[in-house]
Amino acid sequence: MAIRVTVWNEYRHEKREERIAKIYPEGIHNAIAGYLKEEPDFEVRTATLDQPEHGLTDEVLENTDVLIWWGHMAHREVKDEIVEKIYYRVLKGMGLIALHSAHLSKIFVKLMGTSCTLKWREAGENERLWVVEPSHPIAEGIGEYIDIEQEEMYGERFDIPTPDELVFIGWFKGGEVFRSGCCYKRGYGKVFYFQPGHESYPVYHNPQIIKVIKNAVRWAKPVKMISEITCPNVKPLEKI
Amino acid sequence: MAIRVTVWNEYRHEKREERIAKIYPEGIHNAIAGYLKEEPDFEVRTATLDQPEHGLTDEVLENTDVLIWWGHMAHREVKDEIVEKIYYRVLKGMGLIALHSAHLSKIFVKLMGTSCTLKWREAGENERLWVVEPSHPIAEGIGEYIDIEQEEMYGERFDIPTPDELVFIGWFKGGEVFRSGCCYKRGYGKVFYFQPGHESYPVYHNPQIIKVIKNAVRWAKPVKMISEITCPNVKPLEKI
Amino acid sequence: MAIRVTVWNEYRHEKREERIAKIYPEGIHNAIAGYLKEEPDFEVRTATLDQPEHGLTDEVLENTDVLIWWGHMAHREVKDEIVEKIYYRVLKGMGLIALHSAHLSKIFVKLMGTSCTLKWREAGENERLWVVEPSHPIAEGIGEYIDIEQEEMYGERFDIPTPDELVFIGWFKGGEVFRSGCCYKRGYGKVFYFQPGHESYPVYHNPQIIKVIKNAVRWAKPVKMISEITCPNVKPLEKI
Amino acid sequence: MAIRVTVWNEYRHEKREERIAKIYPEGIHNAIAGYLKEEPDFEVRTATLDQPEHGLTDEVLENTDVLIWWGHMAHREVKDEIVEKIYYRVLKGMGLIALHSAHLSKIFVKLMGTSCTLKWREAGENERLWVVEPSHPIAEGIGEYIDIEQEEMYGERFDIPTPDELVFIGWFKGGEVFRSGCCYKRGYGKVFYFQPGHESYPVYHNPQIIKVIKNAVRWAKPVKMISEITCPNVKPLEKI
Repeated sequence: MAIRVTVWNEYRHEKREERIAKIYPEGIHNAIAGYLKEEPDFEVRTATLDQPEHGLTDEVLENTDVLIWWGHMAHREVKDEIVEKIYYRVLKGMGLIALHSAHLSKIFVKLMGTSCTLKWREAGENERLWVVEPSHPIAEGIGEYIDIEQEEMYGERFDIPTPDELVFIGWFKGGEVFRSGCCYKRGYGKVFYFQPGHESYPVYHNPQIIKVIKNAVRWAKPVKMISEITCPNVKPLEKI
Repeated sequence: MAIRVTVWNEYRHEKREERIAKIYPEGIHNAIAGYLKEEPDFEVRTATLDQPEHGLTDEVLENTDVLIWWGHMAHREVKDEIVEKIYYRVLKGMGLIALHSAHLSKIFVKLMGTSCTLKWREAGENERLWVVEPSHPIAEGIGEYIDIEQEEMYGERFDIPTPDELVFIGWFKGGEVFRSGCCYKRGYGKVFYFQPGHESYPVYHNPQIIKVIKNAVRWAKPVKMISEITCPNVKPLEKI
Repeated sequence: MAIRVTVWNEYRHEKREERIAKIYPEGIHNAIAGYLKEEPDFEVRTATLDQPEHGLTDEVLENTDVLIWWGHMAHREVKDEIVEKIYYRVLKGMGLIALHSAHLSKIFVKLMGTSCTLKWREAGENERLWVVEPSHPIAEGIGEYIDIEQEEMYGERFDIPTPDELVFIGWFKGGEVFRSGCCYKRGYGKVFYFQPGHESYPVYHNPQIIKVIKNAVRWAKPVKMISEITCPNVKPLEKI
Repeated sequence: MAIRVTVWNEYRHEKREERIAKIYPEGIHNAIAGYLKEEPDFEVRTATLDQPEHGLTDEVLENTDVLIWWGHMAHREVKDEIVEKIYYRVLKGMGLIALHSAHLSKIFVKLMGTSCTLKWREAGENERLWVVEPSHPIAEGIGEYIDIEQEEMYGERFDIPTPDELVFIGWFKGGEVFRSGCCYKRGYGKVFYFQPGHESYPVYHNPQIIKVIKNAVRWAKPVKMISEITCPNVKPLEKI
């Protein structure tokens, strides 16, 4: 059965800055979606901030198995009622892949319960992404590390809950490290935070980065719920 | 140095229902506070929902090392701006001990990022609280299990993030189990959820339960922050 | 590609005790193997203690993706050199499913690094296995719990390392709880401990139990190694 | 009550190589022990490989709360029966702090259940040790990172079980990262692996490194056992 993926993008940088439009002429969402469409079992659509309901109508959300999220300068413009809907969809099983600056998106922060703050520097420096859990499905087909020629630095301490599984640790030439690939379970849903992807560099054209995102989509696909999100008053199963 | 503890209670059941007032004549908060005051290194105060600002003024919060929370029927009456303040105090290091029905309190749910729903039954049945991490400081001085003659049943699946540390598992006579003692780190703060404590039974007069709460206070006391909750733009530490 | 499963059994109880032979006329290994063969993508074979090299020649081990282990009274008869070979196969990616009394098998204890002791009682009592991680692949297709009419009691404290993932918690009528489904990563290999399966009861004829074992086989299948089990002296990747 | 610490050292490099003797004239053990003795509540002794029973007689082990271990070239000379004794002492509550090349010591490998292999390079390069869990007692009093001017590089993938708590991540100038401060529970005992400390550099004269070791001693001190390392056959606590 197909995995239905929705790639969401704030889609502002690409429209405002020529240097970024050169890297992603159709926007980051269409770049990622294009690569995901190479997989015959993925059904891919996109949605962006400036569409009605941010492109995330009930119909779209109900038919999304995995939501990929890229946002940066306009986190605050995302409406709380849409965030609330996404939140409950995750608790009911929808996968969420939060990319790069989505660390401060409303939905990611709400699911984490922490500030998700970090150190940063935009200096186009080299990053090396080390695999620390090579048997994790998200690392499948990746070698010992991924070399990223130019990336924004994101450094510790990253204020997140301890990841359920830590798959990647990033090394930055300027002297920092970062927990760059972090897995969480929230309700029935699986959440993967993946640090690479500053808009100024062609990171989402890197085949290894795309491979990780594809792996994460498969890992995060929903399971069937066995109970509702309620607090049922239940009868005893044994004599008391 | 003293550990400054604030015991917060909704304090409604005790005022409305005689059978509960008999168990906790001064309220659950004063019962717990009374036991905590036995410790010479604890400085204990209380606060309740119906006080101005729910008794949690900036001055009180700034001078609280560990906040104990009991709430049940009136979670929704707790003002969002107070919840927000508590949240940032936790991220900055204040410990939080969420007792029993506080699983649905606004502050606990916000820190968890999940629905925190569970199964329940009020049948006065026997619970046995098994220690599964006997080397954890919160289990210090407790034997293999704590026997609670009568308790409300709380059953799995409890919709929480996987605990950083699972200290207790509850067994209920009616056939359910529960992750009854769960530790989390959130920002600089430590959070402990502890399931026992339904208002209808004298659970907080049980010396073993009080021992666990005292241990949790010591475990949850703040550490010194080494960085602010911000996203600083930093210079490289190495030549890039 | 097929998943190559080897079901290993001590195979002593079934040959010595008629009441057990009635439940498993061909041995526990053949009962489990029979059910696994229902899956078209599983290639299943069996091996037992009294075969040469316990049926685990280099050729068998090299062609095993997932090894299922049932042992009880004769743990000590398993030769250390065979255990050593299994150990390195796990570190190189072979999955291991340790069933029931395999908690004290040499291979499981060696992979855990703890005593793996527990409480026990053979009283034919009821067990209820609660799912606490419903989105885990090992719980797929299982409801809220599995009811086992008669099982040997295994109780906490179970002296294991904190599981990477805790999927099931067992409830026993006599008053105990148990971490009954525990996932670990060791090297490139995945290890699942699953508590049900005392030889005196027909537990491995329970379709839900078999479903869990099948799920565990799929979860534990090997990934490709990206590095050897050595300590290489490496050149710097950057100028130092 | 005093914490009784035994600092164990292989003590070969210092006797054979003048350049190392210059850094640690009395051996690494006496350097560390000297600093630990600054704490009034620590009772400190040392033991070395070439003493009878490696200095770890039953009497010494029974009176050790926390054992610090430094070994490198002579891991294989440590007698298995002594390793076995240390192992059971850890399971019964003795803390173990494994320093640097102790990653391949028999006792650490036995407690981990993995190969504990890693990448390495001796190039005297700079390491920066980042704190990722600032609220952990082992990080108390440490700033955002520890700068180590010269250190042997230890790089991922480090073949260890996922740490219960990951406190430090190391950054190396040559391009690697490392999980440099890892906490584990094993039985009643606590185990801390701490990567810094190559014999060729004066790492154990760094006050921050010593502070971490002192913190780890306090964190790892034993708790009282509530059960034996046995598999007791128990009576039901409830009617079955």
